[in-house]
Amino acid sequence: MSVSTSNTQDTIVALATSPGSQGAIAVIRVSGTDAISLVNSVFKGKDLNKQASHTIHFGTIREGEEIIDEVLVSLFVGPNSYTKENSVEISTHNSKYIIERVINLLIRKGARAARPGEFTLRAFLNGGLDLSQAEAVADLIASNSAASHQIAMQQMRGGFSNQLKKLREDLVHFASLIELELDFSEEDVEFANRDQLKALIQKIYSVINKLIASFEQGNVLKNGVPVVIAGKPNVGKSTLLNALLNEERAIVSDIAGTTRDTIEDEINIKGITFRFIDTAGIRHTEDVIEAKGVERTREKMKQARLIIYLFDPTQDKIEAVQEQIQEVKDLNIPFVTIINKSDLITESQRAEYQVLNPLYISAKEQLGIEELKDELLNQVNLSNINTDDVMVTNIRHVEALQHTQTALEKVLYGIDNPVTSDFLAMDIRQALHHLGEITGTVTTDDLLDNIFSKFCIGK
Amino acid sequence: MSVSTSNTQDTIVALATSPGSQGAIAVIRVSGTDAISLVNSVFKGKDLNKQASHTIHFGTIREGEEIIDEVLVSLFVGPNSYTKENSVEISTHNSKYIIERVINLLIRKGARAARPGEFTLRAFLNGGLDLSQAEAVADLIASNSAASHQIAMQQMRGGFSNQLKKLREDLVHFASLIELELDFSEEDVEFANRDQLKALIQKIYSVINKLIASFEQGNVLKNGVPVVIAGKPNVGKSTLLNALLNEERAIVSDIAGTTRDTIEDEINIKGITFRFIDTAGIRHTEDVIEAKGVERTREKMKQARLIIYLFDPTQDKIEAVQEQIQEVKDLNIPFVTIINKSDLITESQRAEYQVLNPLYISAKEQLGIEELKDELLNQVNLSNINTDDVMVTNIRHVEALQHTQTALEKVLYGIDNPVTSDFLAMDIRQALHHLGEITGTVTTDDLLDNIFSKFCIGK
Repeated sequence: MSVSTSNTQDTIVALATSPGSQGAIAVIRVSGTDAISLVNSVFKGKDLNKQASHTIHFGTIREGEEIIDEVLVSLFVGPNSYTKENSVEISTHNSKYIIERVINLLIRKGARAARPGEFTLRAFLNGGLDLSQAEAVADLIASNSAASHQIAMQQMRGGFSNQLKKLREDLVHFASLIELELDFSEEDVEFANRDQLKALIQKIYSVINKLIASFEQGNVLKNGVPVVIAGKPNVGKSTLLNALLNEERAIVSDIAGTTRDTIEDEINIKGITFRFIDTAGIRHTEDVIEAKGVERTREKMKQARLIIYLFDPTQDKIEAVQEQIQEVKDLNIPFVTIINKSDLITESQRAEYQVLNPLYISAKEQLGIEELKDELLNQVNLSNINTDDVMVTNIRHVEALQHTQTALEKVLYGIDNPVTSDFLAMDIRQALHHLGEITGTVTTDDLLDNIFSKFCIGK
Repeated sequence: MSVSTSNTQDTIVALATSPGSQGAIAVIRVSGTDAISLVNSVFKGKDLNKQASHTIHFGTIREGEEIIDEVLVSLFVGPNSYTKENSVEISTHNSKYIIERVINLLIRKGARAARPGEFTLRAFLNGGLDLSQAEAVADLIASNSAASHQIAMQQMRGGFSNQLKKLREDLVHFASLIELELDFSEEDVEFANRDQLKALIQKIYSVINKLIASFEQGNVLKNGVPVVIAGKPNVGKSTLLNALLNEERAIVSDIAGTTRDTIEDEINIKGITFRFIDTAGIRHTEDVIEAKGVERTREKMKQARLIIYLFDPTQDKIEAVQEQIQEVKDLNIPFVTIINKSDLITESQRAEYQVLNPLYISAKEQLGIEELKDELLNQVNLSNINTDDVMVTNIRHVEALQHTQTALEKVLYGIDNPVTSDFLAMDIRQALHHLGEITGTVTTDDLLDNIFSKFCIGK
């Protein structure tokens, strides 16, 4: 059964915290009309049915006379809960055995295992969140940098939705007036002032334009800046990456218990994530057999938003380097030329390299790393972005906005040309439909399935 | 700084749930006199200082004007908390970035990162739990079978402690009487009835004896029964293990979100864990070079509580099998002889094998697996153990009980022989000391460090 068509009357249960053996406690979430009475039937302590919302109760979960665990139970009486339904959070000791026993017991008592994202789906269906806010919850959980966090937080708190809602309301107003004209079509009246309508459509069009334009930056802020470090083998690519990563690791390990799953090829500079894409490096294409490999490397480089070209002055001749740099330049992607092992070069070498306008570093000696970081930020030109601005980071939203734009263009054409009111009304309705898709005013089961099935279980 | 000597006035903070990217929410635990006011200083919502214990409040955690997350805050006003101090649990979205930010923020506001087990240490120091109960919390989290769970639960709820406390109280009573005699030593009075004392000591001695004796079974129930599957290469050892494991896996995967870290060589039969120890199998010792390998295998077999000898009738001759079985028998460990590929043998072969009193299975065809499980349970003779009985599972407790016993033997000798009251009193004090070590009536910093440093952070 799909997420969206599942029975919303069921009481659902799932582990809401991460599985794993490191934690001290685990939280099992239960939601649905019967959530409280169902938990109460296996709980020994106060009568949960008689307790106030937002209170916590100590007791035991029992199967018959056997104690499965001593727990804390948090009560949320609907609609004052995340899902807007009656909800219970059971805080157990973090033992897989206990978690399994408690979930199984609740299922035997009438609950069913929640599907991925089902708690948030219910929050949406019950009006607790709109669709773009629900999507932001997933983004927030996945956020791993100041920038991605801030964008997701803003979206979750409705910044994006509010802007769209306002536009949509104004447009609905005109749509009704025009539809009213249809009722009086014999009389050739004009309730909707065409100049005002045109001004509104142009305003909406320009806001949507700005939102679509924000996607490129928004996407980079959310998913990180893809960077390729190019250069011959053994010029120090890994040493450079380690030099960048090591500092990052040190920051992370300051906080016990929050070890990252993997940060092996991501670094965070002043809140912006840079994702390093592994390549075999760019090589001379004279060798025919190698041509295919270089082609693959070039394909990867095209995905980059920034290329770092790393060069070892004790190994490479400037002519060869210039030739390779030209190849990189031809890709038309911002790039930075870096000379490694700067501690080993002479003044005359330095003069010779000046034509490349390079950055001097020593990855091994950790020289010039801070300057490189500043240059990376400078190149992607993101440091001065105001993440308080509403920013689109979701490809689904961009598509809906583009469809809205197409419909708005038709409306504008209709205003300036002899198009009947009913066609005008249809085009406005089309624009409203696509705008509504973003916040979920308009939904289909497929759309909901697609969104919520990507959530983790327990959310 | 060690766990036990750390400043117990500090407000401590740690992630209490498992780290990892799968969960929907994470819980950050804060404990200490200032816990509530400290969280309140970064919380926007109701004034937490004015709220009742055991209530939950929605709001945002902010750094300046920036919203780090929308959270639910659970308040526990001391002494009505796990640690008996003021405590707060902050339920955040499960983003590593958010968790780091919140913990870092609280640390900058004056909290410090909790050391492993420090929340439970505080619960102990503040009288919320005794030492054996605190140890049981760790056992409970690690429990992975019905048996280990039940023993840990019973210990956490004080079953073991209560039994010891009663014995200790009776003994303290006699110790005081005998010490009173010391004050009147000139007058040769006897406040403590020697017959009653002797009866009490004998009673305590017998209870302790029973507790020490329970360790072997308790330990097996807690840590699993170590089993070696022996037999020549290719007799079907792995197939058998898979046949046993597969059913187990199916049960586990019924519950979404609770995947086990690894169950590759553990199976659970009716609540008892069997741990399979990998060996190269037992071989003929005629080959001199192989002798060392066989020696190693034999060492591993000696750690087993049960040996399964697996035999392929299509491959092995009965004489060779009998010879190997004799070697296994010489180890004096319970063993089960199993004939695999039972679907391929003839009636005459069956008659020939009868002397081995074997179990017939086909690992590949899943024949006889249930019978094998019953036999495993039967062999370890644990199925009829009443886990409601107090059972010792902790080597530290066994050692303390053994020391108590030694002291009690001296007391008994002193009663029956012309020993002065002061020596008798000293021996009783010694027994009380060791009994007290178990529940933590008597502690040292080393002891506490040793126990709590093994806990995870956040517990």
